[in-house]
Amino acid sequence: MKESMIEFMKVREKLDKEKEFHMESLFKLIRQPSISAQNRGVLECADLLVTMMKDAGIDTKILDTEGYPVVYGEVLHPDNKLTVLFYGHYDVQPPEPLELWKSDPFEPTIHDGKIYGRGTGDNKGQLIAHVLAVKSLLDLYGKLPINVKFLFEGEEEKGSINLAPFIENHKELLAADIAYTADGPMEGKDQPSVTLGNRGLLYIELKAQGAIKDNHSGNKGNIAPNPAMDLINLIRTMVDDKGRVLIKDFYNDILTPTEEELNHIRTLPFDPEATAQVIGMHKMDIPAEEYYKKLCLSPTFNIAGFGSGYTGEGTKTIIPSEAKVKIDMRLAADQDPDLIFQNILEHVEHFNSASTITLDYLGGVKPSRTPMHLDIVQKVIRAVEISHNKLPVVLPALGGTGPMYVFTDILKIPSLTVPYANVDEDNHAPNENIGIKEYLNGIQTTCVAILHLGEQI
Amino acid sequence: MKESMIEFMKVREKLDKEKEFHMESLFKLIRQPSISAQNRGVLECADLLVTMMKDAGIDTKILDTEGYPVVYGEVLHPDNKLTVLFYGHYDVQPPEPLELWKSDPFEPTIHDGKIYGRGTGDNKGQLIAHVLAVKSLLDLYGKLPINVKFLFEGEEEKGSINLAPFIENHKELLAADIAYTADGPMEGKDQPSVTLGNRGLLYIELKAQGAIKDNHSGNKGNIAPNPAMDLINLIRTMVDDKGRVLIKDFYNDILTPTEEELNHIRTLPFDPEATAQVIGMHKMDIPAEEYYKKLCLSPTFNIAGFGSGYTGEGTKTIIPSEAKVKIDMRLAADQDPDLIFQNILEHVEHFNSASTITLDYLGGVKPSRTPMHLDIVQKVIRAVEISHNKLPVVLPALGGTGPMYVFTDILKIPSLTVPYANVDEDNHAPNENIGIKEYLNGIQTTCVAILHLGEQI
Repeated sequence: MKESMIEFMKVREKLDKEKEFHMESLFKLIRQPSISAQNRGVLECADLLVTMMKDAGIDTKILDTEGYPVVYGEVLHPDNKLTVLFYGHYDVQPPEPLELWKSDPFEPTIHDGKIYGRGTGDNKGQLIAHVLAVKSLLDLYGKLPINVKFLFEGEEEKGSINLAPFIENHKELLAADIAYTADGPMEGKDQPSVTLGNRGLLYIELKAQGAIKDNHSGNKGNIAPNPAMDLINLIRTMVDDKGRVLIKDFYNDILTPTEEELNHIRTLPFDPEATAQVIGMHKMDIPAEEYYKKLCLSPTFNIAGFGSGYTGEGTKTIIPSEAKVKIDMRLAADQDPDLIFQNILEHVEHFNSASTITLDYLGGVKPSRTPMHLDIVQKVIRAVEISHNKLPVVLPALGGTGPMYVFTDILKIPSLTVPYANVDEDNHAPNENIGIKEYLNGIQTTCVAILHLGEQI
Repeated sequence: MKESMIEFMKVREKLDKEKEFHMESLFKLIRQPSISAQNRGVLECADLLVTMMKDAGIDTKILDTEGYPVVYGEVLHPDNKLTVLFYGHYDVQPPEPLELWKSDPFEPTIHDGKIYGRGTGDNKGQLIAHVLAVKSLLDLYGKLPINVKFLFEGEEEKGSINLAPFIENHKELLAADIAYTADGPMEGKDQPSVTLGNRGLLYIELKAQGAIKDNHSGNKGNIAPNPAMDLINLIRTMVDDKGRVLIKDFYNDILTPTEEELNHIRTLPFDPEATAQVIGMHKMDIPAEEYYKKLCLSPTFNIAGFGSGYTGEGTKTIIPSEAKVKIDMRLAADQDPDLIFQNILEHVEHFNSASTITLDYLGGVKPSRTPMHLDIVQKVIRAVEISHNKLPVVLPALGGTGPMYVFTDILKIPSLTVPYANVDEDNHAPNENIGIKEYLNGIQTTCVAILHLGEQI
């Protein structure tokens, strides 16, 4: 233990000396726009990243996909050691609305201890942290105690549309013991966190077509079909009034939480008042356990939009000709969006109504969950604790959706996410930023994780 | 009989000469928007109507109400003769959605033998027909054989909210033997009709407020309330999946149809194919008796609009902060809208949901029904037959709503409706129209009715 503390001090000293370089490296990356949704600068950014990774001593190449390329790198140990696969993305969100930025989104600007710029938090700052950590360790030791691989994609902000087939086609190259992602914000100010999965997503739209035009609700009332009512009648066959989904086999594949997971959830920090305020509710009455079960371990059946007929001021007495509802379901591990979609399709086909109902598939992502008790997972959690000198909050899954299933489902390896960005990083929004302290801590955390997995710390 | 045929020919000849003027009169009225729900142009339209009625030789004045004024006119016979009270409304529905109109809704446009424009059918074309008929008869004879009175309101499309108190306060002025309304479409192509009542109306809006802002459906899914789902859950307690209303006492006051009425209904013409086409449905499977029972003698529970969250293209992953639904119920005689509203209020107050639900009363009109066997009713039916040279279809009640209860309930006189507009007038919808032939026939029918009630034809 004493020896490992000495190693840790050595690493801190080294990183301290390279602060300027670490800042400048991120600045360089931010100055190169890479907006996948707008096809702006993405390939140039891939080239820049390759150069920076090669400069760091990483064996790097560009690998094609059907869309923007993957930047792949590796530093392999001569012996057959443990392998960590670092995942990140070098594309960024569009910067619009530009008028809300306090500085140029592509000219990194320091203000109040934070670096502002598009991509600082999501995901360039967190991605380059891994690269710079490896560079520093190679400088310090001449080698790494484990194998590291880097998978940096250029289409995450477009929904990682080509990631799954790429991974299918490169299983051997990407073989690893764990996937490690730094993305998203930490759980609170100075509160490190580790998440072991994500909910999946199935997004559908149901449309009901009644008569081919709106009809007078008096002259045709009780005669023309009402598509809004038909959709409501369909929805009442899909979900009961307690929110329980009635689609065949919907709950079949959901992992039952282990006693250990439930015990763990009960220990998680939960401030109902602060949470209610963030959401915009008057109050929140549920206990921590129920909160985390609902958010991390249970699926949703959410109406994201419902539109039919006249919704302006006052009255309009019509029978609308059509109605549509958008429903997004967050899926708990191991629900399968394709299977559920098929069952919904069947359900809708068996539903009788005067209106003609159509079902559209608007998107699907599988959920992902990695068991908490795995040794390698516990090791990373410990490394985060060492680097921050504070116990991280460990969440079984994020409420939101990410592409982590590509690791757990396709590569069949554990996957975890260690956010390096501050809680107010404003990703996807104007004035995106990363705290300088958080950014530098991120580099240190990757160093500690590599050394701890390599049993050097 | 021969003499009356000569009179009829005289009238036809006179009307034939004035076609151009009759068209131009309607055009003038259409060009003046009068959208009571949007407070647009209503007073200007009242002024225009007064001028046109005075020009027609009618003693006309504006009478105030708590809302938009009544335009009242009269042509009284020196002797104490029978009095007909013509009712109509000079306000129109909002023209939206504008993009579906093939021509400017407020610039009357002739196409395929029809005049297109907001209000052509509902109700400016049918209202001005009475005025122009009286003008022609006065031109022709210098006087009328009976008393006529005109009651034209400006708030029918808002539910005639100030009509009942107005009539309460002007019982003497409005005293008459029968109320005569031309509104709504005829029963079929070239098929005149007379209706002896109307369904009533109760129009409500339910709003559900969840969090004070939209939330991310992943990070907050299952935690923030979903107001759209809460409204759907409320609606499922208000109406079952067969359309039967579950509000307390909803069906209690409905008149049981007499054997005579049911026998009459069975003789009514019904062309399911043509009806389906008018409505814009592929087919219609119900028999005549059921059709008329549903349309004339039964209430509705219609969703006129439902709005919540994102309804544009593609996906947006939000939990909406609010939802609203507009529901209009057509009421069968003798349902009471006020009583039903009270019961809905109680129902909503007893409904539990995470969202805050509010109920707004947007309008209510009592239903009305006049017995078919009355002499004066039979006389008007005969006048319609003479004008069209065809037996009219006589309906016990219209599916739609008019304020006819003010005549039957407050003035205690029989009330009937003789629609002048074509069956495909598309009232309340884009491309509202009135057939030129139907419009001119309408003017003729008012002439014949006045002469027949005055025993001149």
